[in-house]
Formats: sequence, structure tokens, C-alpha cells
Amino acid sequence: MKLGQLKETDIINSLSDLIKNSQEVMVGMGDDAAVIEKESGKFILFTTDMLIQDIHFNLGTKDITPQDIGRKLLAVNLSDIGAMGGIPKYAVVSAGMPKNISLNFLHQIYKGISLLAKGYKVDIVGGDLSSCHKVFLNLALVGEVDNNILLRKNAQKGEGVFVTGELGGSRYGKHFSFLPRIEESNFLKSRFNISSMIDISDGLVKDAYRIAQASGVKIKICKNRIPLSKCANSVEEALYEGEDFELLFTVEASHIEGVKKSQPINDIPVTHIGTIERGKPEVILYDENKGKEISLEIKGYDHFI
Amino acid sequence: MKLGQLKETDIINSLSDLIKNSQEVMVGMGDDAAVIEKESGKFILFTTDMLIQDIHFNLGTKDITPQDIGRKLLAVNLSDIGAMGGIPKYAVVSAGMPKNISLNFLHQIYKGISLLAKGYKVDIVGGDLSSCHKVFLNLALVGEVDNNILLRKNAQKGEGVFVTGELGGSRYGKHFSFLPRIEESNFLKSRFNISSMIDISDGLVKDAYRIAQASGVKIKICKNRIPLSKCANSVEEALYEGEDFELLFTVEASHIEGVKKSQPINDIPVTHIGTIERGKPEVILYDENKGKEISLEIKGYDHFI
Repeated sequence: MKLGQLKETDIINSLSDLIKNSQEVMVGMGDDAAVIEKESGKFILFTTDMLIQDIHFNLGTKDITPQDIGRKLLAVNLSDIGAMGGIPKYAVVSAGMPKNISLNFLHQIYKGISLLAKGYKVDIVGGDLSSCHKVFLNLALVGEVDNNILLRKNAQKGEGVFVTGELGGSRYGKHFSFLPRIEESNFLKSRFNISSMIDISDGLVKDAYRIAQASGVKIKICKNRIPLSKCANSVEEALYEGEDFELLFTVEASHIEGVKKSQPINDIPVTHIGTIERGKPEVILYDENKGKEISLEIKGYDHFI
Repeated sequence: MKLGQLKETDIINSLSDLIKNSQEVMVGMGDDAAVIEKESGKFILFTTDMLIQDIHFNLGTKDITPQDIGRKLLAVNLSDIGAMGGIPKYAVVSAGMPKNISLNFLHQIYKGISLLAKGYKVDIVGGDLSSCHKVFLNLALVGEVDNNILLRKNAQKGEGVFVTGELGGSRYGKHFSFLPRIEESNFLKSRFNISSMIDISDGLVKDAYRIAQASGVKIKICKNRIPLSKCANSVEEALYEGEDFELLFTVEASHIEGVKKSQPINDIPVTHIGTIERGKPEVILYDENKGKEISLEIKGYDHFI
């Protein structure tokens, strides 16, 4: 079987079956970041993400600068730490670079990383450099979290489903310029009972389904409540296009009103878009105008099939 | 200026000028692994390394299996942690894979990683997966170390220069099958005053020069004492070919005899190959038979120029 015939999720699941970890590892593959217990009440978060030329970005287009690419390399990893309710701390950067790339290009990538790192108080502590046929970047990020860790698996019937910011149209620029929601995630978990959280990297439906599957619940999203970005041409873009890098999270029933009243957080709107229901894992779209529910096909960005 | 016109070291130095870190970071870029202070006497080590198709390995040759590639991906990172006197703990793996690669190939890579991880009690806690034009692998490894950290910068006049194992000819197989020297490094530092240490990844001369430069000393190596591997065709291979992944380290004068008597460690010979002298950073080769010294050209594997 070739990788191109398989779904990314199925490949990852088959890999995690090959790995057996020690008891210190609370969460291995299959959440936004790994969680490792260090001392009672203190946990390490560990995540990694790649950006590959011609897969994640193209060179030679006017819209994208090497600073944008470097910035995004760190930002996608920060977003993962945010989605766990953590604080990012230290990063290492690997850069595979064609020999005909200019030193200035590489410097601009590092400037993009470095500027964002400063804003989020992250140290860039090391890395690896190699020649490569294309521009290939990887960043690995270590963070910290207290015992209030926001996983994907604890959503329960009757809870509210929320999203930060606006969705859709990220490909018109936001997927490079987004601000990872670290402060927002930490504010939310410090005030309210947040039962689960994920960052929207592969589309609202696909990432909502990840919570549904991990928690064994049905997620109902109200179509009319989805906060559409001005750049989005349709609700479909908000449902199925990835890289919004907003937080999707569930809130205990008694705290739903509290979250609604405490927004905006840092000028970011927080919107109550749906409800957790009992049932087999699925994502339902409810149209209030038509009074109609449909079970959504779980699709979104996939690297392989 | 194109990257292909520059030395790897010069590129890395220019990058580290762009990065400013917090006080927690004791060692950033420029040693085998980064060192971050966590609590008094406890430090985190953080390192990362790539393996790229057609740069670090070729596919379709009989000699190399995907398990070898996965094993090496972890082993090179373990070697970095060993060279700091640390203990490896947690890793994340990024895999960029062409769509026409088989699932079994990817599984075999993970098996290679996983088997070695088990032997060294390392947890593989997460990763990233993407399609890619070639096989591209990155591993980032977190380790721990007490306050006896083996850096490159503390070698002093009158100390002994040692090396574990045998050097040269690694390209005939050892660069895939080597055993990272974690136990050996920890044994040595627990018994003796080890002033500096590095793993030999780019050749004895180039890596000795890294200690010479970081410590501001001259390193004299006795040609006749270099422990040549049976696979090595000449001393030149031991001097200039990389990927032996043995430890090169310096020992306080009063402990030189102690180290010589305590070897082999785990059946690995440890050889006294030279001396630290005062002087500008350079690597001198002394031929005992001819009674002649020559200053060696600092060359070895370089990814760019």
C-alpha cells in the first residue's frame, strides 16, 4: 500500500501502534502536543512541525517573504502549545537549504522566527543546518503546563462549543500572519471549566471531529453562528479550509454564559457556535433558518490521499 | 552571497548573531546540544538533526534498509546528548514522505527508531507527517543533565586528549550501526575530571578544532596513537572522514592515568591520543617515528562549500 492511497490520520494511527512509551508520557501522538509528567503538577509539552517548499509554500511569489515563512514555522508550533493550555519555552530549528539560496534569504527566515519568538518569550536554543534539494524547515518546541491540561478527549454532553476569532479565507493571508492564541487559551482555562481544546489547522469540521472522536461525542454546530472572516467567500470555506489557527473548545454548561460575557479577550471575539450531544462521533451542521440538521462529511486538508 | 559559497560554520555563526536568548539558556547554538537551566543543579538538553534523501542517504541501494535510516536518525541525536554528559529522554519525529513510498517503508523507519529508543530508554512522544518530494526526516531530542555538563570550551594546557572506540572507515557501515556513547560518557564524568567533550561527526580534525577554538587552545594529536578501525584504509580517513560518532574529550592532567587504567569501558577501548598545549587554536599532528609536527588543515565534511 502506497502512502498516497491512505488518509493521514490512518497513517499516523498505524505509526503510534509501533511506539510504546514509559508511564511518564501522559499523552503521546494524537493530540496537539505531547504531555510528559515531570513533577507532581508540572508537565512538559513537546511538539514539532515542518514547512516544506512546494508543499506548504511556494517561492518566487510576491505575497510571501522569507520572514513570513520563518514566522509561520514558529507560529504553527506555538498554536499547538496554546491548544493544550500551555506556555511555550524553547525551540530548535532545522533548515535544509539549496546551495543556490542566498545567505540573506536564510537570515530573513531566522528574523521571522526570531521576531515572533521575542513576542512570545520563546528561546531559539539550537538547530541543524544541511544542504537540501528544496527549502525544508522543521521546528520543535518545548513548553510547560500546569495540571490544567486541555486535551481533546474530555468533551461531554450538554457542554458548549466555542471558537476564537473568525474563520475562513485564511489562504488570503491569515495563514501566514495569524497570532497564536497562547494568552487567550491561558485566560480561558484560568477562569472557566474548559473541557477540551484544539487549534483549527485542518478546517473546523475535521478538527471538531477530532474532539468528537477523542471524546466519544457528537458535535452540533449552528451554521448561522459561525463567525465568518471578511475574507471568507462562503461558510464552506470556514468549514473545510484549514489554517485558521483559531481555538476550538468546549465549555462546561454552567460556564457557557460566563465565557460569552468575558469576550472579547485581547480584542478577539469568542463565539458560542454549538453544543455537545450524546451519540456516535460525528459533526452535525444545524441551519437555524431552515430548522434542518445535516451530518457533515469529515473532510479537510489531507497531506496524502 | 549564496550558501554554496560559504562554510557551514560561518553560516551557523551568522545565524546565532540573529538570536538573543534569555538568561535561562546557558548554552545556545554552538555545542552538541543546547543547555537550559531548570532548577539549581538540573538542566535540560535539547538537540535536533535531519536525515535527507540523496544528501545523507540514498534509497534503492542494497546495503541500507529503512530500519537503518530510522535507527541512525535517533542515534545521531543520542550521540549529541552523550557528548554533553547527559541522559536522553523524549523525542519527536518529523517525516516528509513522497506519496509513492509504501506504508511498510515508513513503518520500517519507525521500527528502526523505536528499537533503538527502547535500548536507550527514550520515549518517542509525537511528531509531524507531511507529503514531500523526497524522504525527509528530522528528530528533536530532549535530555537531562546534572551540573557536571561537558562543554567544548573548558580544555586547558597540560590536559590529555582521549577518544573512545576506533576511528575511520565509518562509511563502510559503522555510520549506520554505531552505538551512541551515553553510558561511556556518564561513566567517564562520574569518575574523572573531564574538561571538554564532543562527538566526532565531521572528522577527528574538524571536531578537535571545535574544542581548540571554543577553549582557546592548541590540540596536539600523536599520529601513531590514533586507534584505527579495521575498516580504515589510512590515517587520513580517521583524520578527515566524519561520522565515527565516538567521543573526543579532554582529561585533567592528574586523571590521565586513571582514565587509561579504567578502560575498556563496556568493552570499548579509550585511547590517549594527544595533549592540550597553549597557543592559538589549531590542531597539530605529531609523528613519533619521524619526530615531526605539522599543523593540520581544518577540513572535514561540510554541507555547503
